[in-house]
Amino acid sequence: MNRQQRTPLYTALKHHSLSNPVSFHVPGHKYGTVFTDTGEEDYKRLLHIDVTELSGLDDLHQPESVIAEAQMLAAEFFGVEKTFFLVNGSTSGNLAMIFAVCEENRKVIVQRNCHKSIINGLQLVGAEPIFISPQFDGNVRVASYVSYDAVKETIERYPDAAALVLTNPNYYGMAVDLTEIVKLAHSYGIPVLVDEAHGAHFALGAPFPKTAVACGADLVVQSAHKTLPAMTMGSYLHFNSQLVDEEKVKYFLQVFQSSSPSYPIMASLDLARSYLANLSREDINKISEEIANFKGLLQEIECITVAESTDPVVTTDLLKITVQTRSALSGYQLQSLLEKEGIFIELADPFNLLFVYPLALLKNFAEVSKKIKYALRGVQYDPSYMNISLSYALPPVSQSYSYKKLKNLPKKAVSLENAEGLVAAEMLIPYPPGIPILFIGEIITKEHIELITYLKNSGSRFQGGKLLTFHQLEVFEI
Amino acid sequence: MNRQQRTPLYTALKHHSLSNPVSFHVPGHKYGTVFTDTGEEDYKRLLHIDVTELSGLDDLHQPESVIAEAQMLAAEFFGVEKTFFLVNGSTSGNLAMIFAVCEENRKVIVQRNCHKSIINGLQLVGAEPIFISPQFDGNVRVASYVSYDAVKETIERYPDAAALVLTNPNYYGMAVDLTEIVKLAHSYGIPVLVDEAHGAHFALGAPFPKTAVACGADLVVQSAHKTLPAMTMGSYLHFNSQLVDEEKVKYFLQVFQSSSPSYPIMASLDLARSYLANLSREDINKISEEIANFKGLLQEIECITVAESTDPVVTTDLLKITVQTRSALSGYQLQSLLEKEGIFIELADPFNLLFVYPLALLKNFAEVSKKIKYALRGVQYDPSYMNISLSYALPPVSQSYSYKKLKNLPKKAVSLENAEGLVAAEMLIPYPPGIPILFIGEIITKEHIELITYLKNSGSRFQGGKLLTFHQLEVFEI
Repeated sequence: MNRQQRTPLYTALKHHSLSNPVSFHVPGHKYGTVFTDTGEEDYKRLLHIDVTELSGLDDLHQPESVIAEAQMLAAEFFGVEKTFFLVNGSTSGNLAMIFAVCEENRKVIVQRNCHKSIINGLQLVGAEPIFISPQFDGNVRVASYVSYDAVKETIERYPDAAALVLTNPNYYGMAVDLTEIVKLAHSYGIPVLVDEAHGAHFALGAPFPKTAVACGADLVVQSAHKTLPAMTMGSYLHFNSQLVDEEKVKYFLQVFQSSSPSYPIMASLDLARSYLANLSREDINKISEEIANFKGLLQEIECITVAESTDPVVTTDLLKITVQTRSALSGYQLQSLLEKEGIFIELADPFNLLFVYPLALLKNFAEVSKKIKYALRGVQYDPSYMNISLSYALPPVSQSYSYKKLKNLPKKAVSLENAEGLVAAEMLIPYPPGIPILFIGEIITKEHIELITYLKNSGSRFQGGKLLTFHQLEVFEI
Repeated sequence: MNRQQRTPLYTALKHHSLSNPVSFHVPGHKYGTVFTDTGEEDYKRLLHIDVTELSGLDDLHQPESVIAEAQMLAAEFFGVEKTFFLVNGSTSGNLAMIFAVCEENRKVIVQRNCHKSIINGLQLVGAEPIFISPQFDGNVRVASYVSYDAVKETIERYPDAAALVLTNPNYYGMAVDLTEIVKLAHSYGIPVLVDEAHGAHFALGAPFPKTAVACGADLVVQSAHKTLPAMTMGSYLHFNSQLVDEEKVKYFLQVFQSSSPSYPIMASLDLARSYLANLSREDINKISEEIANFKGLLQEIECITVAESTDPVVTTDLLKITVQTRSALSGYQLQSLLEKEGIFIELADPFNLLFVYPLALLKNFAEVSKKIKYALRGVQYDPSYMNISLSYALPPVSQSYSYKKLKNLPKKAVSLENAEGLVAAEMLIPYPPGIPILFIGEIITKEHIELITYLKNSGSRFQGGKLLTFHQLEVFEI
């Protein structure tokens, strides 16, 4: 057995379970022996290892034996100083990394198209975010990455920022090489925190995009459950930094995660790392070939097309396949048709369907292919889908008020045209294109107002902006 | 089928799984079809329902269909306005309820023997805690509840407190009726937050202690996983308040919990409620009888005794059985002997072993009984265990500095005798008796110093207090 085939945490749990222990401890299902008849067959087997911090089974928040070993094997594989197992998803990792480096009223440079847990973390800590606008990918029609130049401009304007928080890849698997950006930030002593939720499998190397760790990032959070065979809520936080205090990271991880962490989730992180580490070059080649075939097959269907970024700096994750409508139907409508045939995809947006391919061969490739074709059989090719034009012109860098200072300030409504220079009291996300135009606390510019007016007139629906019908925005009274 | 036999969330998941869906979505294990050979047999079955927010499967953070229904059935059973399913343990419920009612520099009255997530929450929010010392139970030798008089004294001194945070029952199942305390707090407009982590099954009624909900508490957190057949990290937060803003609770629940909540954990909360609601009077009587037999059997073993509170206001949870050493061996040592025979208990302290009995009949009562007797066969009766005397004399109410004001203050060491009136910069927990003597931020009194000196001289080990060997404490420079 090679070192990366070892699964010390799972093995210890299995060993404990096979010793036929008697439970006078939590959880209340007592190794699955106490349960409802309904559901028993589904749960029973896994509940054998749904235990608590018994002798020999270590403690996530103070690991010394089997959890420490499992985390060490992960750190070795991912090439970092330390890997922490997370049981409350990347949400808990994002919160912990922000709290470990940020303080109230400190400026933090943040990529605008980030996960809500990043915004929640910044609000909670009372930071003062500086938002960098992402590039807009014309082909895939979604926000992608932040350019080196935008980051450079921002860091030069705010060299005292507490951190640079990036999201790479985006939801659609579009990734860039962060090496130069990280170097730049480090030359200012600014730590780089990367939400790499969708890239846990990038450690496999080419043809997958370069990992944030390989690019030199300080803290990296990965949702193991998204692309690896791990249970939902299982994530990794990789620590690889001279700039960040490891003790603070540890402290906040125990704050934001259950004091009774789930052993089945933790053990699945141990197993998922072992799965990943033992995929051979040949396995990966076979998967790549199958995905190429799959895309070819999709391309044969007239009412859709596989959309790929042609931006030379973007590498797209193989496992993420974006399919664009070439019909009068929206992505949402095509999604419904697929679901009727039992094909469930990751998400739809007005233009696209996003497929997440398994990190394995499909066991029933022919059947699945047939189902997809069948599901879309009645949809006519119609180039009108291209008629909806999209614009996304925001200033590359925009400033927000300190979240700390906004707490408990009163709010009022103002008309859109009078909002320039005021501070937004609501978040505004237009669909399409689904990228936040305004965050709470953001200082409203002329460009914001123009873009909101344009999207409103061209029929976008807005999340937030409850007064937009009356041409008004909610702002803080400062 | 009666209403409480319904399990809408589990049923929807099962229905989805049986429809043989094809997954092009997260999680990466694709309904368990992608997995390591190791572990596959344990995980496979449950992973069929480890899914994501697909059509028809609702969304924990914005529930409208099957999760909303499952939460409504729970609210009906528990007799509250609203029940929220928690997937990150009672930790996330405690954090959310504190954030929903507290703000920085606001005073919060807190029972001293509380879970660390309560302290973490108060620190994070920057509150100013006022600690109430619990009673010390002479028989069981642990901290138990806070008296009505202590709460009254405290509320009269701090009538503007943002909340009263209680823990009931304690870890050992000792509970009190909170009705009068809640009435008192409400007469001052103070909401009552109860960490009832160990009492999820109290809704069964007598002989179990009265629930915090029945006593009128505003927010109540219960670890379903501790005593019900739910997966670890599955908890409930009950909302039943005129004083607390429900929207704030919801907001902070989505902050502190994964945006990809685990469906197996959520569905187990649905099933656990159904299990609890459908236990008959007869079932409960049978379990009570079996527990009485079990205690009788333990009582026959000379080197131990079943310890029970004789305090007239305390009702002890049937499922928690505290066994005290009557030998020269500590609780820890007896625990090791039991583990050698495969008997795993919840915890040991210097004097006690804590058993958590199943909320069901033991399938192998005779065998288990025999194992326990056999495990302890060589231990001699020795009354010397009573020689360790215990004192726990702290002022009933003690004040802390605002956590907000302490952030980033420098620390220094002072000798114990000069610490009076200074502000503790470290937490100090002596074992025995395992109750925090000092919290970070607490103003050090003469009684603290006397108690620390006494315990130190009588051989207690301390968690925290790294300079105590040199007779020093770490304090803030203010």
